[in-house]
Amino acid sequence: MLISHAMTRTQLIEQIKAKRSFLCVGLDTDINKIPSFLLDYEDPVFEFNKRIIDATHDLCVAYKPNMAFYECRGIKGWESLVKTWQYIPGSCFSIADAKRGDIGNTSSMYAQAFFDAASSGMSFDSITIAPYMGSDSVKPFLAFKGKWVIILALTSNEGSHDFQFLSSEEGCLYEKVLKRSAHWGNIENTMYVVGATRAEAFKTIRQHVPDHFLLVPGVGAQGGNLKDVCRYGLNADCGLLVNASRSIIYASSEKDFAERARQEALKIKQEMAVELDRIGL
Amino acid sequence: MLISHAMTRTQLIEQIKAKRSFLCVGLDTDINKIPSFLLDYEDPVFEFNKRIIDATHDLCVAYKPNMAFYECRGIKGWESLVKTWQYIPGSCFSIADAKRGDIGNTSSMYAQAFFDAASSGMSFDSITIAPYMGSDSVKPFLAFKGKWVIILALTSNEGSHDFQFLSSEEGCLYEKVLKRSAHWGNIENTMYVVGATRAEAFKTIRQHVPDHFLLVPGVGAQGGNLKDVCRYGLNADCGLLVNASRSIIYASSEKDFAERARQEALKIKQEMAVELDRIGL
Repeated sequence: MLISHAMTRTQLIEQIKAKRSFLCVGLDTDINKIPSFLLDYEDPVFEFNKRIIDATHDLCVAYKPNMAFYECRGIKGWESLVKTWQYIPGSCFSIADAKRGDIGNTSSMYAQAFFDAASSGMSFDSITIAPYMGSDSVKPFLAFKGKWVIILALTSNEGSHDFQFLSSEEGCLYEKVLKRSAHWGNIENTMYVVGATRAEAFKTIRQHVPDHFLLVPGVGAQGGNLKDVCRYGLNADCGLLVNASRSIIYASSEKDFAERARQEALKIKQEMAVELDRIGL
Repeated sequence: MLISHAMTRTQLIEQIKAKRSFLCVGLDTDINKIPSFLLDYEDPVFEFNKRIIDATHDLCVAYKPNMAFYECRGIKGWESLVKTWQYIPGSCFSIADAKRGDIGNTSSMYAQAFFDAASSGMSFDSITIAPYMGSDSVKPFLAFKGKWVIILALTSNEGSHDFQFLSSEEGCLYEKVLKRSAHWGNIENTMYVVGATRAEAFKTIRQHVPDHFLLVPGVGAQGGNLKDVCRYGLNADCGLLVNASRSIIYASSEKDFAERARQEALKIKQEMAVELDRIGL
C-alpha cells in the first residue's frame, strides 16, 4: 500500500509544539559512507535510512532525502528512495530535496514525480525548487492541493555570492525572488530555503516574508550557528525547519551509528526546546 | 554492456558538417501521448523512443531526453531512461535535460548520476544546469573530463521575465550568468540554453559568448523561428544545437508516428542545410 499524506501548516506547528523541536534530518545517504555491515543487506541505503528514522522520528519534525544521493545509483537508488518515502511516518513532514524547475509542462511532470504516488510511487509533502525560470516553473507544483514548494532564496554555499546578491533597484536577486514568489502561493503552501551561514540576512528576509516557514540548511557540517538563526529567524509560529544531515547521520560509522545519530539529534532538539520556550510556543 | 562516450567539440562539428544538420530531437516522451498500440509492449516509452531514434538519427546530431518525463513514472521511468540512453548512437550528442544544481558535494552526486555509468547505468555527454546556486553547483560536473555542462542563460518561457532580465550595473542577470560562468569552463565543455523565442537577445548573447555552442529550445510548439535564431546565433563553427520536441515526436499519434517524425525532422534539417551553406560550413 502506498501511503499518501500532505501535512498542513497547522499540523506542522502542532508537531513542533508537541515534540519541542523544529529539526529536519537530511537523508543524504551515501552508500560509500554508511557502516560496512549494512552492505550485506539487500538494500543497504534503505536499511540505513530505516534505522536513522527509527532512532530520530520523535526528535525531529521533518525528513529531507536529497535526490542526488539516490539518483547517482540509478534504478537501485530510486528503489531505495521509494522505500524511504514510504517509511517516513505521518507525524513527520517529508521534503523531496530535488531543486527542480523547468518550463510549465515539464514542471507538471516533475510535480507528478514527487507528489503523485499513483504515477511515481511517491508523494512527498513538499519539494525544493530553483527559481531561475520564474513563475511558470513553480506554479505547476502549487496546483497539487495541500502540497508545498520550498523555493531557493539565499543558499549556504560559497557560490551563492555569484548571483543571489546581484543588486538592482529592486534589491538583491534573492530579495526579488522572495517578493515576487510570495504572491504565487501563500504561507500555507510556500516555504523558502535560507542558508544558516547567512544569519545576518535573516533580518532582511523576515522583512519580506515575516510569516513563511524557512528551511534552513547549513547548521553543523557547513558551519552555521543555531542560536543566530533563531535570533533572527524565529517567528510567532516558529517559522523555521532547521536541517542537519551529515552531523547526525554520520555521527558514527560503526554499528552504533543509529544510537549516535539519536544523541546528535537530541542535542539539537534540546537547544531548540530552549528557543521555543523563549518565544513562548 | 554499458556504452560510455563523450563527444568532443570537434567531433560535434564534424557531425554537423556531415549531416548538414544541427537539430536536436527532444525526447519528452509522455506515456499518455504515444500511439496506443505501443502500450502492448513491455516498455512502451522505450519502444517509442527506439523508433523515433531509428527514424531520425541520420537527420539530427543530438538527442535530449527530458528527465521529468521519466521521473514522473518513478522506477519504471528510470528503466526506460537507461535503455534510451543506451540506444542513442555514438554519432549523436546526448543531453540529459535535468536542470540540476546544488551545493558542491550534492552536485558531485548529480554528476555521477548522469555521467558515471558504473554508478548509475548512464553516461550522457552533457547535462543542463540551473545557475542560481553559483560556481560550486556547476564545477563538479566539469570535473568529469570530456563531459559538458549546458547552463541555463535565457529561457523561452514566460516566467523567464521574472528574474532573468533583472538589471544591474553589470547588465541583466542572464548576462551576468554568461560572463561569470564562461570562466568556469571553456568552449570545449560549456554550452548555454537560450530560448528560440528570444531571437532579439542573440546579438547580446553572442557579444558575451561568441564561440560557445548554444542549445536552443522553443522552435516549433513554443513559437520560435529558426531563421531568426540562425541570423543572430550562428557562428563560424555553427555554434547552435536547435531542439524540437513535440513538433517532431508527436507529429502523428497513429501507427505512422515514426515516419511522420522523420518527415518533420527532414523539413527542419533541410532548412538547416541552407543555413549551413549560407555560412559556408
